[in-house]
Amino acid sequence: MTSGPGGGFTDIARDAVADVWDRLPDHPFVRGMADGTLPAPVYQYYVGQNLLYLPQYARAIACAVTKSRSDDELRRYSAALVNIVDVEIPQNERLLARVRDLSGDHVSREVVMAPGTRNYTSYLLAVAGTADVVAIGAAILPCAWSYGEIARRHIGGAVAHPVYREWFEFFASDQYAELEAGMRGRMDADVAGLDPAQRDRLVGIFGDATRLEWEFWEMAIAHGREESGEGAGQV
Amino acid sequence: MTSGPGGGFTDIARDAVADVWDRLPDHPFVRGMADGTLPAPVYQYYVGQNLLYLPQYARAIACAVTKSRSDDELRRYSAALVNIVDVEIPQNERLLARVRDLSGDHVSREVVMAPGTRNYTSYLLAVAGTADVVAIGAAILPCAWSYGEIARRHIGGAVAHPVYREWFEFFASDQYAELEAGMRGRMDADVAGLDPAQRDRLVGIFGDATRLEWEFWEMAIAHGREESGEGAGQV
Amino acid sequence: MTSGPGGGFTDIARDAVADVWDRLPDHPFVRGMADGTLPAPVYQYYVGQNLLYLPQYARAIACAVTKSRSDDELRRYSAALVNIVDVEIPQNERLLARVRDLSGDHVSREVVMAPGTRNYTSYLLAVAGTADVVAIGAAILPCAWSYGEIARRHIGGAVAHPVYREWFEFFASDQYAELEAGMRGRMDADVAGLDPAQRDRLVGIFGDATRLEWEFWEMAIAHGREESGEGAGQV
Amino acid sequence: MTSGPGGGFTDIARDAVADVWDRLPDHPFVRGMADGTLPAPVYQYYVGQNLLYLPQYARAIACAVTKSRSDDELRRYSAALVNIVDVEIPQNERLLARVRDLSGDHVSREVVMAPGTRNYTSYLLAVAGTADVVAIGAAILPCAWSYGEIARRHIGGAVAHPVYREWFEFFASDQYAELEAGMRGRMDADVAGLDPAQRDRLVGIFGDATRLEWEFWEMAIAHGREESGEGAGQV
Repeated sequence: MTSGPGGGFTDIARDAVADVWDRLPDHPFVRGMADGTLPAPVYQYYVGQNLLYLPQYARAIACAVTKSRSDDELRRYSAALVNIVDVEIPQNERLLARVRDLSGDHVSREVVMAPGTRNYTSYLLAVAGTADVVAIGAAILPCAWSYGEIARRHIGGAVAHPVYREWFEFFASDQYAELEAGMRGRMDADVAGLDPAQRDRLVGIFGDATRLEWEFWEMAIAHGREESGEGAGQV
Repeated sequence: MTSGPGGGFTDIARDAVADVWDRLPDHPFVRGMADGTLPAPVYQYYVGQNLLYLPQYARAIACAVTKSRSDDELRRYSAALVNIVDVEIPQNERLLARVRDLSGDHVSREVVMAPGTRNYTSYLLAVAGTADVVAIGAAILPCAWSYGEIARRHIGGAVAHPVYREWFEFFASDQYAELEAGMRGRMDADVAGLDPAQRDRLVGIFGDATRLEWEFWEMAIAHGREESGEGAGQV
Repeated sequence: MTSGPGGGFTDIARDAVADVWDRLPDHPFVRGMADGTLPAPVYQYYVGQNLLYLPQYARAIACAVTKSRSDDELRRYSAALVNIVDVEIPQNERLLARVRDLSGDHVSREVVMAPGTRNYTSYLLAVAGTADVVAIGAAILPCAWSYGEIARRHIGGAVAHPVYREWFEFFASDQYAELEAGMRGRMDADVAGLDPAQRDRLVGIFGDATRLEWEFWEMAIAHGREESGEGAGQV
Repeated sequence: MTSGPGGGFTDIARDAVADVWDRLPDHPFVRGMADGTLPAPVYQYYVGQNLLYLPQYARAIACAVTKSRSDDELRRYSAALVNIVDVEIPQNERLLARVRDLSGDHVSREVVMAPGTRNYTSYLLAVAGTADVVAIGAAILPCAWSYGEIARRHIGGAVAHPVYREWFEFFASDQYAELEAGMRGRMDADVAGLDPAQRDRLVGIFGDATRLEWEFWEMAIAHGREESGEGAGQV
């Protein structure tokens, strides 16, 4: 049951894609982080792809800054951009360095963008280039929101793994929850005045991005295993 | 053997992705059109997706118009845009109408964009939104060029099918070959003055788009069969 | 009296900037074309600047193609783009060639974009880059519509000047009136469903572009006289 | 003497527009701040327009983020963006509040964008929308760089005015000089590998923006006097 009491856009959009959304916290990759069984090379592969994903995600947010319709929207998307560039990218770089220290370097440094990463980031940038600021908000939300949902689901039971535990702590933190709640609240407000056809289009974008989020996890586990050799040494 | 005498960008880019490029004319979908065995519903599905693809392709070309650096580039990409909007989209609409007349309507009119179509068009629009006019040229070329190559390969032997034959005739025509040669020649000229790193980036874009071209044919045959029922009545 | 019976967006927007709009047909430049007294070098200067203006105008329209929200909008702005590139730019090139034949070349071929041209085209491209397709429609409308209004006002009395007469005939033609009516009608339809705040923003854009239209005529007559020498030989 | 020893792009670009650049520190508006004679309402008008200018300036920088070609460029333009949004805009808001406290509110709160502001910001956004990241760098540099030059010229002699003095201190600070030197150094590096035609185009953009910088000061003093009444009470 994901349906909330609000009935705002974000509730509606999530419920419309519940068949995918509700399974995200149970994805094998996520479960493997929570119980510590995820092979380190698979995790390395994921972080490496994430470090190719995040700059493109940032570029899509920058489009929202360019198209912002008020000083408030300008500030809001600038803050979202700087959060990616100054917080999340360095955080991923630290995680990658630490997992390399622990388990050796299983992924070549010349990381090539995988199809799942390319498809997802292309989608974000395609929406960013052709649609308006609210549509960009709908496209970037599933990534930001689902990470919070996933982390909160597992933070109670996640094992004290030297790297994976930190991932859950980062995204289950109060600070992150506040950022996420702010994004949701403002999206609900932005969509409140739109007509049903416009809202449905945004629901569709949120759904597409949610499915691409799923496909990103799928790619991480499939390609990560392939590239590093199935069952390669855990951390 | 795809290597040509020119040694210009388009030769280099095609050779770099030859493992995919050279197989395009032998794709089962294409062979099915040539020998007339392609089930009509599969073809309907393909044309339906193409009619969702082409407007996005046109939007990417429009970005090249916006970013054009000279009156000549402005005219050239305007002409490419109007060719899609005024020639290729109506041509696809006619093909769809005729195949429906012949074999009935096997695809619901509310066609939804399939993942393969979304991935390909998102890529085109992501390049269009973030990169320069030459990069857009590299991204849109594989579609335009490979259709000519495919059609010329099969035009001699393609059976007198009431619909598929026209597809080959359209893309094997002298008029189309001229358009295609113009695109190639101008890309070669555009890239001639660039440094190797810039050229390599463009080779990469051409390769990505070629792989997405292959995936589009794959999707057409796989989803088309699924949606319409394997082996459903041929035209 | 500019107020029309419709009460659609275009009536409202025009009336809001009536102090400028209503004076456009009486601008000294226009009157000089109508009575044949406009010095040929001033006209040359104007056409030269127009040939720098139109490609940027076309680039702004191309942004509308990229941001179009339906196949119908895609076709409509593609048609507007191709009209500029294939009809209006060549028409201006012909006018420039003919006025040069008649009166000699009073403007250096290395024409530099004047501030009035730069300000107007920058505004169009700034709206095109930051706002949505309807806003782009509002920005490009004053140029297209006012030329029709101006030409129809003077076509009855314009003298049989070997060049200027053609200008009036082109923009007073039935074909042009149809294009213009189509643009107005579709803008009225596009804005009909918007809320008052959105409509007011579009009224503001229409007003800005109308003032820039006036400033373009001002620049043409001021800079044209300066560059060519006041009172230089009429055609 | 503006010519420096470096011979990099920024020296060349500045020297090419030296007739305007060299006069910026002597503009009557700037001299009026330095000697404390600038009427407070004129300063209020300037800050009010600056608060309409800066968000558009930020939107142009965001386009550079979107078009950034490397992680380094992404970080660099994100940092420039956040400097405008989190430092310069709040700084201008504080200055406006303080000058209002000192001299009363001489400018209506419903500030309308003046033509000089609109022309300058439209130019920035037009470059941002149509050209590449290096061109955007060239367009935004004159504003950032000239403020440092102006402030350093006057910091020694600027009177202890309760508001104007702070303006000079902010832009003459070591921190600001470092930001400015970083922008110049990276532009020099970005342009070093380009061919002469590309460099000349960038010199032209730098020159256009420098002239618009001058026109902004002109507008500030002319419109500020007009709106507030010439000679209205100094702070």
